[in-house]
Amino acid sequence: MSLYERILAGDIRAAARLMRNIDDNLPSSRSDLQELFPHTGGAFLIGVTGPPGAGKSTLVDQITAAYRKRGKRVGVVAIDPTSPFTGGAILGDRIRMNRHADDEGVFIRSLATRGHMGGLSRSTADVANVMDAMGMDVVIIETVGVGQDEVDIVRLAHTTLVVMVPGMGDDIQAIKAGILEIGDLFVVNKADRDGADRTARELSMMLEMNKYAEGAWRPPVLKTEAQRNVGVDELVESMENHRQWLVNSGEINLLLKEKNAALFQTLLKERLFAEVYGRIEEDGRFGEILDGMLSRRQDPYSAVEQILAERLKS
Amino acid sequence: MSLYERILAGDIRAAARLMRNIDDNLPSSRSDLQELFPHTGGAFLIGVTGPPGAGKSTLVDQITAAYRKRGKRVGVVAIDPTSPFTGGAILGDRIRMNRHADDEGVFIRSLATRGHMGGLSRSTADVANVMDAMGMDVVIIETVGVGQDEVDIVRLAHTTLVVMVPGMGDDIQAIKAGILEIGDLFVVNKADRDGADRTARELSMMLEMNKYAEGAWRPPVLKTEAQRNVGVDELVESMENHRQWLVNSGEINLLLKEKNAALFQTLLKERLFAEVYGRIEEDGRFGEILDGMLSRRQDPYSAVEQILAERLKS
Repeated sequence: MSLYERILAGDIRAAARLMRNIDDNLPSSRSDLQELFPHTGGAFLIGVTGPPGAGKSTLVDQITAAYRKRGKRVGVVAIDPTSPFTGGAILGDRIRMNRHADDEGVFIRSLATRGHMGGLSRSTADVANVMDAMGMDVVIIETVGVGQDEVDIVRLAHTTLVVMVPGMGDDIQAIKAGILEIGDLFVVNKADRDGADRTARELSMMLEMNKYAEGAWRPPVLKTEAQRNVGVDELVESMENHRQWLVNSGEINLLLKEKNAALFQTLLKERLFAEVYGRIEEDGRFGEILDGMLSRRQDPYSAVEQILAERLKS
Repeated sequence: MSLYERILAGDIRAAARLMRNIDDNLPSSRSDLQELFPHTGGAFLIGVTGPPGAGKSTLVDQITAAYRKRGKRVGVVAIDPTSPFTGGAILGDRIRMNRHADDEGVFIRSLATRGHMGGLSRSTADVANVMDAMGMDVVIIETVGVGQDEVDIVRLAHTTLVVMVPGMGDDIQAIKAGILEIGDLFVVNKADRDGADRTARELSMMLEMNKYAEGAWRPPVLKTEAQRNVGVDELVESMENHRQWLVNSGEINLLLKEKNAALFQTLLKERLFAEVYGRIEEDGRFGEILDGMLSRRQDPYSAVEQILAERLKS
């Protein structure tokens, strides 16, 4: 049986294997993903982002437990900062969420932030699609930071949760600016700390400044203490409300269109580059161009146009 | 006279105009950049990164002043977080560094983090190249955050400065993990605050864990108070030391090779995608594929391979 058939038959190890193949950018992973694609679309994708130290991993652990209590199967794709010394993800799958280790209804996969040939957001989309095809009801994508890459990643989700911590002081304005538009829900975690109410209030005020259209979703600001599992049920309730709103408002159609368009565009960009660059790297052409650039005899702009003229059919 | 000729003749307004054309992704900007490319390579490129609130803008302002005192012309490319409501950069060129406003030896350009068709790192590289060709001795690229996009941006620089603040507590481990490998110099700014020594010590200890080869550059950890201009001269001295080390060790050749390779690769990727995607978007093919994906009749993986087969010469 091929890998995708084993995955559709519920073989967890086959799924783990395909995810490694995706990591290694093996061409065979494309045909597996191709066969799995028609079986995707069932999962509810939740994106979780926020600054380092906000307690995202613990919160994701609690959200996972809450969905398990509701009988849902949960997949987690955790984008971990890469260790500068080992090159691997800092928090491995095994360190994360030990308590779900024996639960067949939970599947966890860590991706390191470096070394994704086709871009991290593509790898993440592929891994989320595998979990979706495996029959996971909920797939949580967890990522650190507020960079463009992180924004692209949370755009894979149906519902995006932004996790903050109290007392970020001066920094909050700058951080919020980048995340206000991506959050469907905001959580002030570690809510037992000083300044939690103030941070929540400030966030609400920033959000109020937005002009919401009639019937638009108004992102709620919630408070949690993930460590003690306080506020997590309310959070899950609120995420389910957002999901329901997506369906009732018809917004889900627009969202799916964007998600699918982004997946296709990223794939197209990556494959075009791999084919054309692979060739000129192999036949020495790239080396010549690079030498020319270093001596300033050759500019990259006209070199690229020439390659386009040679390789693209009109 | 064409735009690039005016730029080479020292026309500041022509440079500003070309930068807007780059922002707007006008095809004409490519031919201007092509003509300017042979005139680049003279500037010392300094990347400055770190978390929001670390005081990077103030520090860049002081570094600029320090280089001006040394008689150097300074360009600054500031990557600003995008306002979620206006879509523009939060800190505009005019808000930044008012005191250099009348100084013809300083040229400042803000780029917003959103809406760069070819990717932010490409736009940044292009703008830095324009400043280089304008004859700026030093070009400072300032960016927020620790995402992949930011890492790509600082890779444009010869020397990368990572700015931290004291007392980041729990967060520091996570933040440091992503930045240790990109910093050539580390600065603990706001060094008058509690915990500055501890943060500097922790950073030094983390760096010590690295195995440095004989003759390798060992990133120093410095302390500054940018607001009061304390420690800035030492910092500039240290950056100049790094620059000297790059030349003396021959490391500069490797670095230039990487920078040029990255510029060429990004350009190739962007132009291939623009040509091929532009066509299928225009002729309705993309719409059909998207409809097929939404109904799961069509998977994106085989759709992309088919387009490759049709458009690429073998």
